[in-house]
Amino acid sequence: MHILILGAAGMIGRKLAQSLSQDGHRLTMADVVAPPVLPNATGMTLDLTAAAAPSLIAGRPDAIIHLAAIVSGEAEADFDKGYATNLDSTRALLEAIRATPGYVPKVIFASSIAVFGAPFPAKIPDDFFTTPRTSYGTQKAITELLISDYTRRGFIDGISIRLPTICVRPGLPNKAASGFFSNIIREPLVGKPAILPVSDTVRHWFASPGAAVGFFRHALTLDLSLLGDRRALSMPGLSATVAEEIEALRRVAGQKAVDLISRIPDETIARIVSTWPCDFDTARARALGFVAETSFDAIVAAHLKEI
Amino acid sequence: MHILILGAAGMIGRKLAQSLSQDGHRLTMADVVAPPVLPNATGMTLDLTAAAAPSLIAGRPDAIIHLAAIVSGEAEADFDKGYATNLDSTRALLEAIRATPGYVPKVIFASSIAVFGAPFPAKIPDDFFTTPRTSYGTQKAITELLISDYTRRGFIDGISIRLPTICVRPGLPNKAASGFFSNIIREPLVGKPAILPVSDTVRHWFASPGAAVGFFRHALTLDLSLLGDRRALSMPGLSATVAEEIEALRRVAGQKAVDLISRIPDETIARIVSTWPCDFDTARARALGFVAETSFDAIVAAHLKEI
Repeated sequence: MHILILGAAGMIGRKLAQSLSQDGHRLTMADVVAPPVLPNATGMTLDLTAAAAPSLIAGRPDAIIHLAAIVSGEAEADFDKGYATNLDSTRALLEAIRATPGYVPKVIFASSIAVFGAPFPAKIPDDFFTTPRTSYGTQKAITELLISDYTRRGFIDGISIRLPTICVRPGLPNKAASGFFSNIIREPLVGKPAILPVSDTVRHWFASPGAAVGFFRHALTLDLSLLGDRRALSMPGLSATVAEEIEALRRVAGQKAVDLISRIPDETIARIVSTWPCDFDTARARALGFVAETSFDAIVAAHLKEI
Repeated sequence: MHILILGAAGMIGRKLAQSLSQDGHRLTMADVVAPPVLPNATGMTLDLTAAAAPSLIAGRPDAIIHLAAIVSGEAEADFDKGYATNLDSTRALLEAIRATPGYVPKVIFASSIAVFGAPFPAKIPDDFFTTPRTSYGTQKAITELLISDYTRRGFIDGISIRLPTICVRPGLPNKAASGFFSNIIREPLVGKPAILPVSDTVRHWFASPGAAVGFFRHALTLDLSLLGDRRALSMPGLSATVAEEIEALRRVAGQKAVDLISRIPDETIARIVSTWPCDFDTARARALGFVAETSFDAIVAAHLKEI
């Protein structure tokens, strides 16, 4: 299968590309920074603007996995760039596909739980409305609607995959408001300190990087007609509190690791996090065979395999 | 108050303009066909394309009531025209507003229950998801998201008003799939025959033209900050069956009028109508003071006052 990955140099993109390459798929990997070099893969280093769309699909890939986006904070800080990158580029891609006679690729779009906006029910059901409270979430929700409409009209065979917060993120601590969820596991596991800016009772919605790769791999082989016209799906994940995270850390690395976490409350972060969804009923995705971790121990174990 | 009405020559636009003009508001009335001439009103006859957006707001109206759209059937038949007219023109309008320093008008957008797609619960709640099954519904749902995001960012003070099916529509019978709901009342009331293409048990969601005018008038004076970030609202309406329509006709015009209705089943129309929503719980809109008819007798009475 020839698979185009947009955002192939990112954290999920790299892992996914490696896994698909190992399976013998032919890849085209595009990103604004040079994607990793892999067997049977062509790299394209380019800005994924609307103007670039036709060149991306010139090779008529069988499937397109679209992970490219600017993040929430940047889309909020730069309104024009957010809409151009996260909405217009994707719409241009869909239009380029529609303009190619006889070409109906599978399109797997990485969406986000940011399409939802507080207040929430205790568990967000599959039929809950999308009222994003960021421009990023708005752009994702709009793209979901486009993916569904272009599918319904027969121009693509699409699915939107709403990812949980990915944990444990590899790499250095970052300033994303959600960074601490990963920092408090990743850093103590290698003997480094980490800051916890919110209360232990804060609950959130998680999946490992490996689970995220699994969602896209599963979507590649899934008969998407099973979704009918409702092509956006909240993925399975784990609802866990910070306290549960810390207990999982303690079980694997002891009190010494837990002691590396400093509690330094940050009201701004606490306020942002309080508006995020923290639990979902993902009956539809599970019935379709999507799977994620069911304990924080499994999430920590997945991380330990990587380091 | 200076009010810009887009789509001012349409059925709702005309009634609304007349009512606002009588109240002494200054109006700018724009449409692709010449809007009616009213006191203290300026008419603009132009295609409401994206390019026209800056000229529409050059007079910095305090409020913009956006009723302009191409209808569902046309948006389905002409994909490009649907997105250009129902999405891109509105986005261009929002962008023109954003580009005008210090200008934050109230924007009241006419949305539709077409943002919802079957299957439905018995009553569609305010937090039900939008999974449109037409490109028209997709364009409305996307515009709702833009209205909410532009509001949240402080560029406009917006609301999206999801209209029920308007009944009794004045004028001649038309070929819209929903036309019969009005035809079977309007035509027999003036001694003319009408065709009923579906079963008596079909249920649908109605409001009179006058109720629709009332929704927009109420939105003009409502403090929209009461809606928080959730700026799209399903309007109140009446859930009624075709049988209930016919009984209301019988009460006002007798069996002679009912006998003018011929039952000629049309499977295509029956299938389309079966995918439409037929009942809503509109608690939010009602709490905010929006009102509609509560019986089909009232809908028929509203129509009789007009003819």
